[in-house]
Amino acid sequence: MGNTFGHLFRITTWGESHGGGVGVVVDGCPPRLSLSEADIQPDLDRRRPGQSRIVTPRNEADQVEILSGVFEGKTLGTPISMLVKNKDARSSAYDEMAVKFRPSHADYTYQAKYGIRNWQGGGRTSARETIGRVAGGAVARKILRERYGVQIVGYVSQVQSISARIDPETVQAMDVESNIVRCPDSRVAPRMIRLIERVRSAGDTVGGIVGCAIRGVPPGWGEPVFDRLEADLAKAMLSLPASKGFDVGSGFNGLALTGLKHNDLFRNRGGKVITLSNRSGGIQGGISNGATIYFRVAFKPVATVMHEQWTVDVQGRNASLKGKGRHDPCVLPRAVPMVEAMAALVLVDHALRHEAQCGPAPAKPVRPGKIKE
Amino acid sequence: MGNTFGHLFRITTWGESHGGGVGVVVDGCPPRLSLSEADIQPDLDRRRPGQSRIVTPRNEADQVEILSGVFEGKTLGTPISMLVKNKDARSSAYDEMAVKFRPSHADYTYQAKYGIRNWQGGGRTSARETIGRVAGGAVARKILRERYGVQIVGYVSQVQSISARIDPETVQAMDVESNIVRCPDSRVAPRMIRLIERVRSAGDTVGGIVGCAIRGVPPGWGEPVFDRLEADLAKAMLSLPASKGFDVGSGFNGLALTGLKHNDLFRNRGGKVITLSNRSGGIQGGISNGATIYFRVAFKPVATVMHEQWTVDVQGRNASLKGKGRHDPCVLPRAVPMVEAMAALVLVDHALRHEAQCGPAPAKPVRPGKIKE
Amino acid sequence: MGNTFGHLFRITTWGESHGGGVGVVVDGCPPRLSLSEADIQPDLDRRRPGQSRIVTPRNEADQVEILSGVFEGKTLGTPISMLVKNKDARSSAYDEMAVKFRPSHADYTYQAKYGIRNWQGGGRTSARETIGRVAGGAVARKILRERYGVQIVGYVSQVQSISARIDPETVQAMDVESNIVRCPDSRVAPRMIRLIERVRSAGDTVGGIVGCAIRGVPPGWGEPVFDRLEADLAKAMLSLPASKGFDVGSGFNGLALTGLKHNDLFRNRGGKVITLSNRSGGIQGGISNGATIYFRVAFKPVATVMHEQWTVDVQGRNASLKGKGRHDPCVLPRAVPMVEAMAALVLVDHALRHEAQCGPAPAKPVRPGKIKE
Amino acid sequence: MGNTFGHLFRITTWGESHGGGVGVVVDGCPPRLSLSEADIQPDLDRRRPGQSRIVTPRNEADQVEILSGVFEGKTLGTPISMLVKNKDARSSAYDEMAVKFRPSHADYTYQAKYGIRNWQGGGRTSARETIGRVAGGAVARKILRERYGVQIVGYVSQVQSISARIDPETVQAMDVESNIVRCPDSRVAPRMIRLIERVRSAGDTVGGIVGCAIRGVPPGWGEPVFDRLEADLAKAMLSLPASKGFDVGSGFNGLALTGLKHNDLFRNRGGKVITLSNRSGGIQGGISNGATIYFRVAFKPVATVMHEQWTVDVQGRNASLKGKGRHDPCVLPRAVPMVEAMAALVLVDHALRHEAQCGPAPAKPVRPGKIKE
Repeated sequence: MGNTFGHLFRITTWGESHGGGVGVVVDGCPPRLSLSEADIQPDLDRRRPGQSRIVTPRNEADQVEILSGVFEGKTLGTPISMLVKNKDARSSAYDEMAVKFRPSHADYTYQAKYGIRNWQGGGRTSARETIGRVAGGAVARKILRERYGVQIVGYVSQVQSISARIDPETVQAMDVESNIVRCPDSRVAPRMIRLIERVRSAGDTVGGIVGCAIRGVPPGWGEPVFDRLEADLAKAMLSLPASKGFDVGSGFNGLALTGLKHNDLFRNRGGKVITLSNRSGGIQGGISNGATIYFRVAFKPVATVMHEQWTVDVQGRNASLKGKGRHDPCVLPRAVPMVEAMAALVLVDHALRHEAQCGPAPAKPVRPGKIKE
Repeated sequence: MGNTFGHLFRITTWGESHGGGVGVVVDGCPPRLSLSEADIQPDLDRRRPGQSRIVTPRNEADQVEILSGVFEGKTLGTPISMLVKNKDARSSAYDEMAVKFRPSHADYTYQAKYGIRNWQGGGRTSARETIGRVAGGAVARKILRERYGVQIVGYVSQVQSISARIDPETVQAMDVESNIVRCPDSRVAPRMIRLIERVRSAGDTVGGIVGCAIRGVPPGWGEPVFDRLEADLAKAMLSLPASKGFDVGSGFNGLALTGLKHNDLFRNRGGKVITLSNRSGGIQGGISNGATIYFRVAFKPVATVMHEQWTVDVQGRNASLKGKGRHDPCVLPRAVPMVEAMAALVLVDHALRHEAQCGPAPAKPVRPGKIKE
Repeated sequence: MGNTFGHLFRITTWGESHGGGVGVVVDGCPPRLSLSEADIQPDLDRRRPGQSRIVTPRNEADQVEILSGVFEGKTLGTPISMLVKNKDARSSAYDEMAVKFRPSHADYTYQAKYGIRNWQGGGRTSARETIGRVAGGAVARKILRERYGVQIVGYVSQVQSISARIDPETVQAMDVESNIVRCPDSRVAPRMIRLIERVRSAGDTVGGIVGCAIRGVPPGWGEPVFDRLEADLAKAMLSLPASKGFDVGSGFNGLALTGLKHNDLFRNRGGKVITLSNRSGGIQGGISNGATIYFRVAFKPVATVMHEQWTVDVQGRNASLKGKGRHDPCVLPRAVPMVEAMAALVLVDHALRHEAQCGPAPAKPVRPGKIKE
Repeated sequence: MGNTFGHLFRITTWGESHGGGVGVVVDGCPPRLSLSEADIQPDLDRRRPGQSRIVTPRNEADQVEILSGVFEGKTLGTPISMLVKNKDARSSAYDEMAVKFRPSHADYTYQAKYGIRNWQGGGRTSARETIGRVAGGAVARKILRERYGVQIVGYVSQVQSISARIDPETVQAMDVESNIVRCPDSRVAPRMIRLIERVRSAGDTVGGIVGCAIRGVPPGWGEPVFDRLEADLAKAMLSLPASKGFDVGSGFNGLALTGLKHNDLFRNRGGKVITLSNRSGGIQGGISNGATIYFRVAFKPVATVMHEQWTVDVQGRNASLKGKGRHDPCVLPRAVPMVEAMAALVLVDHALRHEAQCGPAPAKPVRPGKIKE
């Protein structure tokens, strides 16, 4: 249970890191959308291992196949099944994991919950699981772009304590992709890369923050009281492996202000309603207000380190374990397409839910004020 | 849409601040649980206005009535309908809200989404909406306590920039309730209270952080990959009015550490598996590990301030608006029972979901290491 | 669990026959629909006891109150809570039910499932439970009528072995309401009424069939492969108390034909696509084709008879029980508004689901051929 | 939308008759169940074309592959993905279907709903779609058998107007499988087979009834008021291609009786509570009572006939069409495993739902009285 996400645009993912493959079934996709593997593969390529020197050097092509739901290049409205086959590379690097729990991984909890686990490469807990999300998210992004003009730009905004300055109003995907750490602030990106390289050399790992800006969402998306837009974004982000926190708009940093300063004042500028600031992050009362939506996701340092650490074995006896094989020193660069995919899935679902109840959104979005992250 | 929360233990809330009342239907409650209004009212009393000098002085008794689902003092397994009637106090304080949007409230977005809104007291966007959550959450807490021995303790841990030191392993509800700001750190609580009083005198407002500790959850609760325990907690918390952020375990603060230091090492101590630290916050891979679960929720400063602020009217013309009537200078003390209620709803739902698939949880929880917030 | 129906237009019902009342929460209703109690009460009046000499003479007014979701006569898009209070008439007629299971009722199964039951008047298993359905269905019918021009006409088509001839293409609500048995075939209605009176005098009961015709549904409603329109109708009907069977179009009676004769041939008549017959019942492959939808629901004879019958008591000892108090000799006349309400709930939900994925339905329905029930 | 079935034990199916394949994702399967392709294939073999001289002679092996969710022969508790590849046999027999609507098929409605359809072999509307259901159902049946001792036996009970006499209390799968029409009444099976052969020679088709008996269900499964056990069975059955009707217990045939005769009287026999008859079909008030559950499903005559029939083309112009290729003259023999699979899916889901709310079912089922179909 728990492998389906969304109400009207709904993905169901499946697959372990070792076994027949990983995949996703997308249900609820509008019919007659042009779709082929070429729409999906680029996001998978941004997610895949081996893409740069600061991610895990495992080389997996992760080629996606669309098995159903598309006919003569168009979606049918029926379920879209997508499959990425696993390479059957059963590594002896994993043998120790059969009998010992990796610290701060999910080995112990899967064993405790299910009484069984696929210990090869982490099984279902492997980041490979996110392939289905990214593939489904690529379909969602295409709909958002083509039907609504919505743009989603994710980016690395902090690595350990190196912070970037990024303006959600203007950040461009091109700038994100201009370096291997996916930080659009060209002043700090090289420092982030050097930090990750240094940490990797030390057999250690770091965490950080992925930010995300969403522009072009019309007012009206979000379903109070429980399925607020920010609530579903929070759930989506906290469902990603290694994520530990989420905030939207001014978030945790907004607490320093009083209400008088924190409020986003409405103003009419040349016939348009704008807000003079955007501390709300584009969402008020759980509903988009037409301004740019932006949020942050905290990812903890990767748990697999290349040092001997204490742990217990499956019998509960004291033991120690040292990370082996090829691992990411920092998940952030590969997490960017995951964050974007999950955001896209939330937004398409909410677009459809909103229109189902209320009809198409009205034409007058609030134009947002300036904010800085 | 969006007014139902949970899968197996499920609440549906309804009601506006003005109108016949507010309420909740609880579906999926186990049968034969002792239940009466006396189990619900105490949490509603902690939520209600007028309870202390630092919350809104509106005096509403918020007496709950159980209309169904209970027979001779026991739950029937059928839906439990609970109702709190509204006092029909249509205040002229709200008249201006009919024609102007309050800044950083949901007036604009409700109007944009639905093309109509109940502007009296905020209608559905009023914090009165949370009465149904707290009532449903009280049933959930009772189940958690009686059936699983789970304890949930929420507390105010920060008001603007005044931070408390609170240990999730040991914090007691009694200490939380020992002062009106609901901060169990008796050294800083008086300062928090004074700050709120000062801010209120200035017609201004402040935000802050509510923390929550959950002790006694067995290993195994949580449904990867999407319905991870922390993902559902995040959604629950971000669905609360005025919340802007969530983190679990080390959260945003854990980013300073590297993997080597951040990992929670397993160790056998006298036959029990423990972790030497608890930066995971009791959840690994989306599943509880038996250690204490703790998380934080950021609440923004209340949007209603007693000063004239710029806004627009419903025609989009420039206007200004000054808060009137009786309002909270700070939501935190009243947010504590809301946070606890939502946490309880998430946990009971996950307890039932886990047992449905996997049977009762095993007997050997991880005993947690020390952590400090 | 199990007290919510629908995906996008969703009702949650609650309440026992004795206790605070019965009610419903409607979530997902489009905003800005005119709505008041006057839209709901007529269907409740057609459902209520005491309406004629062939239903139970219990006299309950069943006045509905709308508690939320409506503001100045229009729906808000927020949940609509409706309440019908119970008269607190705890009858001693029910005392025996505390200790004995009524044959072919749900007393035994509720006790077995929940280990507890509200034995007063059947508790949740009472037909009073359908008040919430009829109230929610009245909202759904209004939307269908005003937004889509869809007409739903239910009718009694068979009482025991007295069958009526009714043409789903032309049957009118006015004719249904022209007699107390709600059979629009004026030749057989008097015989049905006499049969029910005779059966009642004998302390016995009868069952029969309620048919339903739905005209004006555009092509395209229905969500294969599981949520086919006929599948959701079947579920809706079999969820009604005392129902035992459902068929659509030619149904069980179509089995006598071979494929050659059974097929509904398409033909262009004056620029319109029609079918020369409508054995499909307006649904093909789970999706409406624009022709009239018609189906039948079998209701068993009422289980409460005024004769001593064998049973067991709650300890499993042999006993006997004789029906007391005031009961329906035949549920059919009161079941008509229930069938219509459930049909309306299914259709509105499917209208919204269809439009969410595919946009508004195209303009060219199939015009149906003649069929006779 | 609409391609997922179940709440706690949930299948999502995908695939068109032409394309990469068809498949299913099973979510919510209990962990540590022994499972391999050998558990799935036998039911697929009973469903597959080419199995006998009275079904379509298309020869498809329909070999299933388990891609995930199983490790070292045991289920992991994670999603089980199963795939049956299509043979890429694009037949020119289908070319005419690109431009003409087959009468009483779903071509017209899919086109009307989605504005596009995969016309090759019917695409998603092909009976090939049921492969995923049967594969998922095989897992469900294994759980029911091993964990609960529940036996599901489907059978053909009527072909056109040839009816069999079958006792749901005693019918055995072995007898069902003893002949190619899957009718356990050996007196009439040969006549049914001859009828189907005769009809096929005439290029025509017939329909009929599949019955199903379920023995061993404990009292307590079923979730009133909407998710009654019979309601979910009805939905499951009406979601099958070509089904037109459903009844449970005495069903449509019980209407001839009055309440006095129809009631199932409880009696204590040697310390066990039994019912002297079982017209309720093992379900009372939507909840199983421990007696045998039995129901009937009506399947219409197959729409594809080998005769020229009127229709229209995709432009709405009059045309005619004659069935080509290899088709079933009667779906019933192949429908038996489909009915069993859907019944199994409903029952496992309800078993888990019941236990989630109420804990394991009590030990004292009602032993059923004799009934005859």
